[in-house]
Amino acid sequence: MTSPLKVAIAGLGTVGGGTVRLLQQQAGLIATRVGRPVDLAAVSALEPPPGLDLSGVRWYGDAVAMAREAEVDVVVELIGGAHGIALTVAKTALNAGRHVVTANKAMLAYHGAELVELAEGRGLTLGFEASVAGGIPVIKALREGLAGNRILEIHGILNGTCNYILTRMSREGLDFATVLAEAQALGYAEADPSFDIDGIDAAHKVAILASVAFGCRVRFVPGTVEGIRHLSALDIKYAELLGYRLKLLGIARRSGAVLEQRVHPCLVPAGAPIAGVDGVFNAVTIVGDFVDRVMLVGRGAGAAPTASAVVADILDIAAGRIAPAFGVPVAALDAIEPAPLSARVGAYYLRLMVRDEVGVLASVAKALSDTGVSIAKFFQDERSPGEKVPVVLTTHDTDEASMQRALAIIAAQDAVLEPPRLIRIEQF
Amino acid sequence: MTSPLKVAIAGLGTVGGGTVRLLQQQAGLIATRVGRPVDLAAVSALEPPPGLDLSGVRWYGDAVAMAREAEVDVVVELIGGAHGIALTVAKTALNAGRHVVTANKAMLAYHGAELVELAEGRGLTLGFEASVAGGIPVIKALREGLAGNRILEIHGILNGTCNYILTRMSREGLDFATVLAEAQALGYAEADPSFDIDGIDAAHKVAILASVAFGCRVRFVPGTVEGIRHLSALDIKYAELLGYRLKLLGIARRSGAVLEQRVHPCLVPAGAPIAGVDGVFNAVTIVGDFVDRVMLVGRGAGAAPTASAVVADILDIAAGRIAPAFGVPVAALDAIEPAPLSARVGAYYLRLMVRDEVGVLASVAKALSDTGVSIAKFFQDERSPGEKVPVVLTTHDTDEASMQRALAIIAAQDAVLEPPRLIRIEQF
Repeated sequence: MTSPLKVAIAGLGTVGGGTVRLLQQQAGLIATRVGRPVDLAAVSALEPPPGLDLSGVRWYGDAVAMAREAEVDVVVELIGGAHGIALTVAKTALNAGRHVVTANKAMLAYHGAELVELAEGRGLTLGFEASVAGGIPVIKALREGLAGNRILEIHGILNGTCNYILTRMSREGLDFATVLAEAQALGYAEADPSFDIDGIDAAHKVAILASVAFGCRVRFVPGTVEGIRHLSALDIKYAELLGYRLKLLGIARRSGAVLEQRVHPCLVPAGAPIAGVDGVFNAVTIVGDFVDRVMLVGRGAGAAPTASAVVADILDIAAGRIAPAFGVPVAALDAIEPAPLSARVGAYYLRLMVRDEVGVLASVAKALSDTGVSIAKFFQDERSPGEKVPVVLTTHDTDEASMQRALAIIAAQDAVLEPPRLIRIEQF
Repeated sequence: MTSPLKVAIAGLGTVGGGTVRLLQQQAGLIATRVGRPVDLAAVSALEPPPGLDLSGVRWYGDAVAMAREAEVDVVVELIGGAHGIALTVAKTALNAGRHVVTANKAMLAYHGAELVELAEGRGLTLGFEASVAGGIPVIKALREGLAGNRILEIHGILNGTCNYILTRMSREGLDFATVLAEAQALGYAEADPSFDIDGIDAAHKVAILASVAFGCRVRFVPGTVEGIRHLSALDIKYAELLGYRLKLLGIARRSGAVLEQRVHPCLVPAGAPIAGVDGVFNAVTIVGDFVDRVMLVGRGAGAAPTASAVVADILDIAAGRIAPAFGVPVAALDAIEPAPLSARVGAYYLRLMVRDEVGVLASVAKALSDTGVSIAKFFQDERSPGEKVPVVLTTHDTDEASMQRALAIIAAQDAVLEPPRLIRIEQF
């Protein structure tokens, strides 16, 4: 095991560049830790990025050709995209007998089970620590560090862009659009931010986490995702008055035969550890039947933290440390489907803007009672400009279908002047 | 690799019982995860504890005989104690060619390097995830998950008893002695609590963490430890007014040629993530040069969480996953000595009880300025019963030797009616 491990990197963007720098800067430390050198042998990108020293490294213009031909042990896929060249690179590398390490959550959310099947059949590793929560070693924690546990639940802040936006909205009382524009100017949000703010990115990650936690085939199910576009500073203010913080969370929970796997804005108790994780930080809470709850917090994106995770996978390969990609062998994976959002049972926060007239509150209360939704707290704020009166309530646990029926009745009332705002409450 | 891994457990106390239960309850899951059964083949304890099903398990009255003779692959040492039978069991097992897993931080703090040397020379594993921070997989995170990083710093809440006491003192404004008595009644503190409240337990753990983080030989140095006996609700109150929280922290930091490794009460900014970790929970923050900071939070003690960590080590052995015990091979370990507390540089909180008379503040200020200590904040509270006036100040960064010189001068003044209270401030 003293021969060098040879690595090829496909894609030299932010993470690719960080990975090259890490492998070069820590070469001595790495060789001491794993007992053999880890050599960067080949790279592939459209053009050489500035500032990287790639002398002695073979250059490929075609990443697929590199995956097929380069004399390496590991191909690191950092191109991105769910179905395109990244997938071809990963499959080509595995078919050519090379281990694959990737940070590509979209590819894994759609093709994870298939890729792992391919890898496992050939005795190869598919490493994807970097695909979830950046530098936080959460996949390893689930798969090895907590391997003696039956995992009961995972929930986490999995998208730093959304957490940054919600933190700013909460601290400054600013509107979503204002903070989004600011985040874009600072480089914390993409020019087209929909992938982040509509919850898709977090949903890809929670699909991967659920698979590792519960030993099920990765499934990304669009019907289980709600983003943060519709959230307002007003709702954050009321939520905080009620003792909650607003977070976009990914949640995966196995209750009997049902797999809950969803992403949506959540009100969490202000004292819950995850409520205090602010700004661009990510956090994942794992609940196991023996360990109880473990929370991991760290940077979920960025060149250096993500490179840290990519290299951790490479070093496991270098040292011969192997664990089944999704915690159990592919043959033992469960094909259970995530339940739709409508199957949720829990408490809700509801904010209405109503006309200030006699009988409005009574009709709202009747709609809820008619659909079997029990009110926990109810308050009416002072009239705001335009004669609209904010009415805020929380419910006891109810099923989402009943809540949505109540919502439809309430929204149709003449005195209800704006679409009601519904936010799910999670009592961690 | 489909033959069973055979395990012997020495010591069936809290953690031993939890480990037996975990191995039995999750036998199927474990076999699926590691590809082979993990069988409990032998146990040793003075008498069989109630409630454990040990049918088919060989019983030894003598743990050393079991370590030497039992036909097992792994001996789990859960007897405890730094130098006694636990050490003999560990050495005997290693000399007999068996892997060792232990939760014994005291033994590791004194004999860790020696034991690892023995294990490594024979190609065996010495697993000790359970020795630090209970169920939190922090050793694995350091050694594998963050292996691409040069670790810059570790700090953590490593003793749940102390954190519980400080949390209660802060929330209820109660005195140390009152809360300690309550903690003893609840079973959160031992009848003889000195090992916990004097910081020794945390110091053993920080010695182990420092070794894994920085690749140095484990050294427990008593001169780097200060406990929580002398802390008062009054200081917690003032600290909170100043925007701090009071925690007993273990800190390890490598700055140039100096290894800081110490345990003492710390004031940390109220907004620091670790400031929010309350009650019996433990937390460890790891700062790496690429990953930046990662914090892990969870239960630091208890049968089930600690068993989770013990079994994680067993499963790594079952799956053949190997990493050097202290991150690098024994031959590469650095023999650097931890610096004494007097070498610290940082800010300080100081609280005096003075007689309310002209010139007292001037003479306190002079003592500080004569010793080169620069004041950051200074306030005098209202007179308390007995005509004592509390004077509280914080300093800018200064070296501990200067601070202690100033303290000696101040304490000797006639108008200073009680021993001054000094608490170190850490700006995370």
